[in-house]
Amino acid sequence: MDESVRQHKILLDESEMPTAWYNIVPDLPEPPPPALHPGTLEPAGPEDFAPLFPMDLILQEVSQERYIDIPGAVLDVYRQWRPSPLFRAHRLEQALDTPAHIYYKYEGVSPAGSHKPNTAVPQAYYNKLAGVKKLTTETGAGQWGTALAFACALFDLECEVWQVGASYDQKPYRRLMIEAFGGVVHRSPSELTAAGRSYLAQNPNHPGSLGIAISEAVEVAAPDPEIRYALGSVLNHVLMHQTIIGEEALLQLDKAGERSPDLIVGCTGGGSNFAGLAFPFLREKLAGNMSPTIRAVEPASCPSLTRGTYAYDFGDSAGMTPLMKMHTLGHDFVPDPIHAGGLRYHGMSPLISHIYELGLMEAISVPQSECFAAGLQFARTEGIVPAPEPTHALAATVQEALRAKETGEETVILTALCGHGHFDLASYDAYLNGRMVDEAFDEDRLAEGLSTIPAVPGR
Amino acid sequence: MDESVRQHKILLDESEMPTAWYNIVPDLPEPPPPALHPGTLEPAGPEDFAPLFPMDLILQEVSQERYIDIPGAVLDVYRQWRPSPLFRAHRLEQALDTPAHIYYKYEGVSPAGSHKPNTAVPQAYYNKLAGVKKLTTETGAGQWGTALAFACALFDLECEVWQVGASYDQKPYRRLMIEAFGGVVHRSPSELTAAGRSYLAQNPNHPGSLGIAISEAVEVAAPDPEIRYALGSVLNHVLMHQTIIGEEALLQLDKAGERSPDLIVGCTGGGSNFAGLAFPFLREKLAGNMSPTIRAVEPASCPSLTRGTYAYDFGDSAGMTPLMKMHTLGHDFVPDPIHAGGLRYHGMSPLISHIYELGLMEAISVPQSECFAAGLQFARTEGIVPAPEPTHALAATVQEALRAKETGEETVILTALCGHGHFDLASYDAYLNGRMVDEAFDEDRLAEGLSTIPAVPGR
Repeated sequence: MDESVRQHKILLDESEMPTAWYNIVPDLPEPPPPALHPGTLEPAGPEDFAPLFPMDLILQEVSQERYIDIPGAVLDVYRQWRPSPLFRAHRLEQALDTPAHIYYKYEGVSPAGSHKPNTAVPQAYYNKLAGVKKLTTETGAGQWGTALAFACALFDLECEVWQVGASYDQKPYRRLMIEAFGGVVHRSPSELTAAGRSYLAQNPNHPGSLGIAISEAVEVAAPDPEIRYALGSVLNHVLMHQTIIGEEALLQLDKAGERSPDLIVGCTGGGSNFAGLAFPFLREKLAGNMSPTIRAVEPASCPSLTRGTYAYDFGDSAGMTPLMKMHTLGHDFVPDPIHAGGLRYHGMSPLISHIYELGLMEAISVPQSECFAAGLQFARTEGIVPAPEPTHALAATVQEALRAKETGEETVILTALCGHGHFDLASYDAYLNGRMVDEAFDEDRLAEGLSTIPAVPGR
Repeated sequence: MDESVRQHKILLDESEMPTAWYNIVPDLPEPPPPALHPGTLEPAGPEDFAPLFPMDLILQEVSQERYIDIPGAVLDVYRQWRPSPLFRAHRLEQALDTPAHIYYKYEGVSPAGSHKPNTAVPQAYYNKLAGVKKLTTETGAGQWGTALAFACALFDLECEVWQVGASYDQKPYRRLMIEAFGGVVHRSPSELTAAGRSYLAQNPNHPGSLGIAISEAVEVAAPDPEIRYALGSVLNHVLMHQTIIGEEALLQLDKAGERSPDLIVGCTGGGSNFAGLAFPFLREKLAGNMSPTIRAVEPASCPSLTRGTYAYDFGDSAGMTPLMKMHTLGHDFVPDPIHAGGLRYHGMSPLISHIYELGLMEAISVPQSECFAAGLQFARTEGIVPAPEPTHALAATVQEALRAKETGEETVILTALCGHGHFDLASYDAYLNGRMVDEAFDEDRLAEGLSTIPAVPGR
C-alpha cells in the first residue's frame, strides 16, 4: 500500500479475537471490599445473589482467576461484529488542528449499537444453561435493554425491560427496537411492582431513575425460580465481560504502531464501558509495561466519582440489593433527566470505585452542552453520530487534543465510542435548536441523596 | 482456527479494496438507448446535463470505459467503512431449516447507514473540484439525503434536501440525522419552488413523491452556476459508483469458498443498490464464468419493472429532466405512502431497464407485509433490524430458501442488505401492532400514471 495512504481503521481478523475475559481483581494491590448482606451486614455469599443470578455468573462475580474462557457459543455470537474496529480520527484531528493522535474503539457496530451485547450475550447464555425462562432488567437510554432483548432472542428466553421514564418518553424508537427483538418494555416507575407504585404515589409523572428501574426488575425476578435478573453494568462479572474491548484495543494500537496511549478516556455511568476499555491497559500499567493516564468522565449532573461519597450503599433505589461499597450520591438520588440516560446512575461500580480510591485512575465531570458540541463536531468530521453517553468522553478528548495543540505534543489519546446516537437524535435537535440548558448542579438534592446512605458501623 | 468454528463475516483488508468502479455499458450485447432532449427529442449531449452536474460526472455518465479509477480522496473516505462485511446468515438458515447458504453484503456499516455514501462521496468530491458551493437533492426515506449531507460536510459544501412528504412525516429522526451532519431539509412538495407550489395547490397535504422532490431540487440548482444537483440513483454514473459493492462481494464469496451464487437478489427503487451488487456478477456471467439468476424485487405498490411500460419518460414529475427510456409507471404516478420510501420511484434506472429488456435479469414484486415479516425474522435471528427497502430482498431470499428446503438443494443465495432500519422503527411498530395493511394495487391510478408518458415518435 502507498505510504501516503492514511489508515482509518485498524481491524483484527476473527482468528485474532481474544478468547478469554480479563478479571482485574487478582492483579490489584488490595482486594476490593466485599458486598454485605443488607440485614446482617456480614459479607454476602454466593447464596445471597442466587435469587437474582445463575451460579455461573455468581462464581464469575467473586472469581480470583485472572482469565476466564469465553464459551464457544458466546464466541460464535461475538464473531458477528467482533473484533470491533479501532479508528484513527484523522479528520477530527485535522479539524482541531492538533498534533495529538486520536483513536476510538467503536462498539456501535454491534446489533444493539453499543458495547452492551458483550455482556448481554454471555448473561443470556449462562441463564439459558441454568434453565431460566425469562430475564428481567432495567434500562436507561435503552442500549442495555436492546442488547438483552437481542441476546434473549438468540437463546430463546423471554425478556422484560423496565425503562427509566425520562428516557422512555424521550426515545420512543429505543422501545420499538427492543420490541423488534421480541422484548417487552414498561415505563418505570410502573404499576406492576410495589416499588414502582410507591414512587408513582409520590409523583404520577415520576421521571424514574436507573435505581428505581432496578428495584422493579429485581422485585419481579427474585421470587420466581424461572425468572432471573440481568444487570447491564456495575457488577464485577459485567465489567469483566467488557474487557474484550480493551484486549482487542491493545492488539490494535500495537498494529497501528503506537507503543502506548498517553491518555485513556471513557464515559462512566455504571462503569462497564470504561472498565472494558481501561482494565487491560491498567493491567499493563500495573505490570510496568506502559504508563497511560486513565480518566473517567461523568456528567456534571450525576457526578458519583467526583462529588459522591465512598460508602456502603444499595445498588437500587428501594434498597433491595446487597450493600456495595462504592462512590454514591445516595441510592435515592434522582438526577436531572439529562439526555445521556445511560449515565444517570446514583452509584459507581464498586470495582472502579476501589481502583479510584487506590489512585490508579482519575475522574472529571463535564456539562452536557459541552458534550453535545463535541459530539456534533465528531459527527461532522468522522461521520458517526455518537450516543450522548460517549460524547462525554469525546468532550474530554477534545479538551486534551487542544492541550496538545498548545504544547505541540503528539499525545496518543484512546477513547471508547461505546455506541451510536441513532436513537438520540431528538437530543441533538434540542442542542441544535437551543433547547438544551446546563442546569446548575442542585446541591440540596445532593445533600438529600447523601443523607439516604445507610449507616454501616465499622465499614 | 477450529474447523467447527462458523465464520459469520467475511472481511477484506483495506488493501484488498477495489480501486476502480465498473462500467457495464461496454460489456452489454447492445448499447442502451440514449437520453433525449425534451424539446428537440434528439439524443441529449453532455451540454444538456451541464446545468445539473459537473463535467467529470457527465463524462462518467456517458463513458464507454469498462473501469474508472476511484480518486484517492474518495478512496480515503471509503476506507472508513469499506470494504464492507459479507455475512453468512447461519442463524436465519437455521430458523428456516434450509440447506441454502444465505449471504448478505451489509452496507449499513457506512456513516449514513446505507450504500448511499458510495456515490455521495464521489459526487461531492467532483462537485467540489468544479467549484460548486451547494448541492441540492431529493430524498425518500432519507438514506440518500443523509449520505449527501455527510459527504458535503467532508468537502465543505452546503447541502439542501427536499424530502418526500410521506417520509418526512413518518421518519422525523432522518431529518434530524441530516441536520446533525449540517444539511437543511424541506418537506416536499414545498412552497420554495414553482413545482412544489403547483402540487400543494392540488393538495395542501400532498404526500409527495421522489419525482416531485427531484423537480424541486432541479429547479433550484439549474439556474445558479454555484449550485448543482445530485441524484441518489437511476443514472449510469450513480450505479457505477455502487459497483464497489459487487466487486468486494465477488472477492468475499471466493474467500468463503463458494464458486458462484445461484441467485442474486436485491431490492429496486431507482436501482443503484441492486446494480451495485449485481453488475460485477453480471460481467462474470456474460463472460461465461458463472451463471447466477439475477432477480430484482420491487414493492407491489410501485412495480415499475413488473407493471410499468418500457418507454421514454421524464425522470421527475414536473417534466424538467431529459427524457430517458426506462420502465415507468408514468412520471406523474404517485404510489401509496408505503414504508419503503426509498422504493417509491415511478421509473427504473434506464440501464437496468435495458438489461431487463435484454433478458439478462428477472423481476418480481412483493407486498409490504410479507417484507416486514421477513425483516422481523431477520432481526430476531441475525440481530440487524433492516431498513424497509431491503426487507423486499429478504422476503425474496426467504422464498428461495424455503424452496431449497423442499428440493434439498444447497442453493447459494447472495443478497444486498443495503441499510439498517434504525430510523424506520415506527414502520415495524405499525407492522407489529396490526396497523399495516396491504392495499390492493390501484389499477386506475396506474392507468392514469401511464397516460402521462409523453409520446416520442419513432422511439
